[in-house]
Amino acid sequence: MIDSAPPLTCYRCGATAAFPDRKRCACGEPLWFDTEGAAADFAWPDSGTGVWRYADLLPVGSRARSDSRATESASASERESADPRAPAGVGAAAGATPLVRVPTLDADAGCRLWVKDESENPTGSFKDRGSAVGAAWAASAGREWIGTVSHGNMAMSVAANAAGVADGPNAVVLVPDDISGERLAAIARYDPTVLRVAGDYGRLYRETLASDAPVEFVNSDTPLRVAGQKTTALEVCEAFASGAATEKEAETTAEARDPSGRAPDAIVLPVSSGGHASATWKALRELQAANLLADDLPRLYFVQTAACDPIAAAFREGADEVTPDGDPGDTAAYSIANADPPSGTRTLAAARATGGAVLSVPDDEILDAKATLARQAGFCVEPASATTLAGIRRLSSSGDLSADDEVVAVLTGTGFRELDADGPNPDTVSLGDLSGRLRDLTG
Amino acid sequence: MIDSAPPLTCYRCGATAAFPDRKRCACGEPLWFDTEGAAADFAWPDSGTGVWRYADLLPVGSRARSDSRATESASASERESADPRAPAGVGAAAGATPLVRVPTLDADAGCRLWVKDESENPTGSFKDRGSAVGAAWAASAGREWIGTVSHGNMAMSVAANAAGVADGPNAVVLVPDDISGERLAAIARYDPTVLRVAGDYGRLYRETLASDAPVEFVNSDTPLRVAGQKTTALEVCEAFASGAATEKEAETTAEARDPSGRAPDAIVLPVSSGGHASATWKALRELQAANLLADDLPRLYFVQTAACDPIAAAFREGADEVTPDGDPGDTAAYSIANADPPSGTRTLAAARATGGAVLSVPDDEILDAKATLARQAGFCVEPASATTLAGIRRLSSSGDLSADDEVVAVLTGTGFRELDADGPNPDTVSLGDLSGRLRDLTG
Repeated sequence: MIDSAPPLTCYRCGATAAFPDRKRCACGEPLWFDTEGAAADFAWPDSGTGVWRYADLLPVGSRARSDSRATESASASERESADPRAPAGVGAAAGATPLVRVPTLDADAGCRLWVKDESENPTGSFKDRGSAVGAAWAASAGREWIGTVSHGNMAMSVAANAAGVADGPNAVVLVPDDISGERLAAIARYDPTVLRVAGDYGRLYRETLASDAPVEFVNSDTPLRVAGQKTTALEVCEAFASGAATEKEAETTAEARDPSGRAPDAIVLPVSSGGHASATWKALRELQAANLLADDLPRLYFVQTAACDPIAAAFREGADEVTPDGDPGDTAAYSIANADPPSGTRTLAAARATGGAVLSVPDDEILDAKATLARQAGFCVEPASATTLAGIRRLSSSGDLSADDEVVAVLTGTGFRELDADGPNPDTVSLGDLSGRLRDLTG
Repeated sequence: MIDSAPPLTCYRCGATAAFPDRKRCACGEPLWFDTEGAAADFAWPDSGTGVWRYADLLPVGSRARSDSRATESASASERESADPRAPAGVGAAAGATPLVRVPTLDADAGCRLWVKDESENPTGSFKDRGSAVGAAWAASAGREWIGTVSHGNMAMSVAANAAGVADGPNAVVLVPDDISGERLAAIARYDPTVLRVAGDYGRLYRETLASDAPVEFVNSDTPLRVAGQKTTALEVCEAFASGAATEKEAETTAEARDPSGRAPDAIVLPVSSGGHASATWKALRELQAANLLADDLPRLYFVQTAACDPIAAAFREGADEVTPDGDPGDTAAYSIANADPPSGTRTLAAARATGGAVLSVPDDEILDAKATLARQAGFCVEPASATTLAGIRRLSSSGDLSADDEVVAVLTGTGFRELDADGPNPDTVSLGDLSGRLRDLTG
């Protein structure tokens, strides 16, 4: 755990500010925690699981540091009480998602593909990483309320993580006035306070960050959330560095790890606000500071839906800043249709600094990639997550990725919540005819 | 990996049989792999993840055994090709689910509660453990088809795991004739062959296991599936033995582990066919054979829905065998409403051998427990999974569990796929009034 109140800093102008007073720099850009100095002493941990494995790089939380030999004979209660801050509850289940080779998609993707399956988080998306850190910080700081502006994955995640912390905060979720009853119901399961807000949703995002109400908003690109979201890339890089990513062998002692800083050639993720994208860049910067990555950073590729692609447009145009888009059109990838991404410009910087790119893909390619991920690999994702494979296909076609590149697609959220009312209409056979039918099928 | 064709054995009469020719013993009971002898040499592994971490106790699969030092400088391709059987694809993502302390529910549960969140599997349920083993076995044996009888979690899981194996099998899923369009659509995403079958579904289950069609059926209590499902309990016991379950510290070398065989006092899981229940018992037997558990095994408690509880009825009545129930009534816990559980009698034996019990809980208690798991702990589960908390409440009331008992509730499947059309109807506030409203809320 780093100091309890690390300063914030601006990636662009270098200005610093105090947390939690500020979220944005005077220059207009988002702030993040100034942890790259602390990272110089970071080594791959020997223990710990989920996001808390990387507590040394987080602004809150503690890995229990008791000597295991000394506690061998202690009762479970004694062991627990030795460190009441030891992670527990749903926040302890965030992260530690599988990273797996997916050879069945190599030909389709045009490269050597891994997927990082973030749907295997407690509420079904990567958002749990940031929410766990946000809820833990609020509890440790004695804050009674956390909040967020979301009508999707982040809303559920914040509510669940607030519920799961002992003596933790309450959650307030601000949703758009026209939210569907189905989405409201999914959020309400975790019993947060929900308020509909009439008015511009982008403006709402910014105003909550400047609000003087005693609610710590953990919106999608806030410092606490970005700190938690860093752990996606930390896990990816640790798996590659340890050899686990290729051999599915978790080398389990730091000493046994390959010190060469082996990493994937590219990491590809969907981008909406730019919070996860920024966090991924931050993770690479910290690992570089810790001398755990080679100079040649993994290229970061960020993918938007073509229906709403202000960051990709700025990248194509060589612009220095992202200009807000108009109203997004309809898109299957609704959860990343962000017309005014608060960390859009920071995402541009991340792509350029790592030799990557920001691109966008149309709905037909997104839906085809979604179907392919399920049919040829067994992963059922939301359309936003399928932008990764759709983007990788384009990057392979353009020569930005090659057949021997090792590429990680981050599948950010589950497709389980999207139900189709109608499926196929398979034949009916009688029990008596079944054996014959199976022989015909397999013959 | 144990021998490629370990024999099968009957837990009740001790008869043996060859795999894959037989699934049921001549005495009528289900067979499982005869691995307790091999287990005598088993030690907690130093490496490996997911179900494949326990490959030494599985009938298929291999942990890569290369010396990490020797491969430090090898390229990723060379490392992979060194062991083509190294797990990859969605099956490599099965298992390794979080086990977390949930102190926010201790008072409600009346004990010291942990949850094992099986919803954090690739297709959202524990079924992926058995499906991964089944699909891997089929691929290694050159079988072109695997199948299952299911219209729920197992159907999706078998289809996904078949899709995710390179050069793996095709999948055929047999569903009841009256399956809903929504369920068909969810299964069809993974593109298996689906056949509706008219006729008794329980009879269908048995007939597929005796079929001479070249399809390896990995139904819910078949030997391959039970082998995979063992890993739920192996993970639970390893986490307790290592101290990770209390301290959230994954002690990562076998040497550092507490050798005392510390384990939870009780493991509680929903029961339907009895396959997972049997597998949990099998895991404990193997760990006992390996001298990794104290003589005092964790008590196994299995919970049914009161609408359909033939195993609980047999337990209450002190019967030796389970008698099939009539048609199950409607129940929220539809996924465990099994009127003729093929491993029901084995489940009875498991409860009795460990000093546990089989009980059932009514729908109102199941739905209340489901709501509590989300609202007070952040876990959104299907009603079947909530039978665990409902059962634990009853066991605490009856004195079977006490406040200092360490109890693991296995949350077997996600609630994400159950959508409610209508939610609450929260107030709408204008952007201008928001700050005031937040101050009122938090004041």
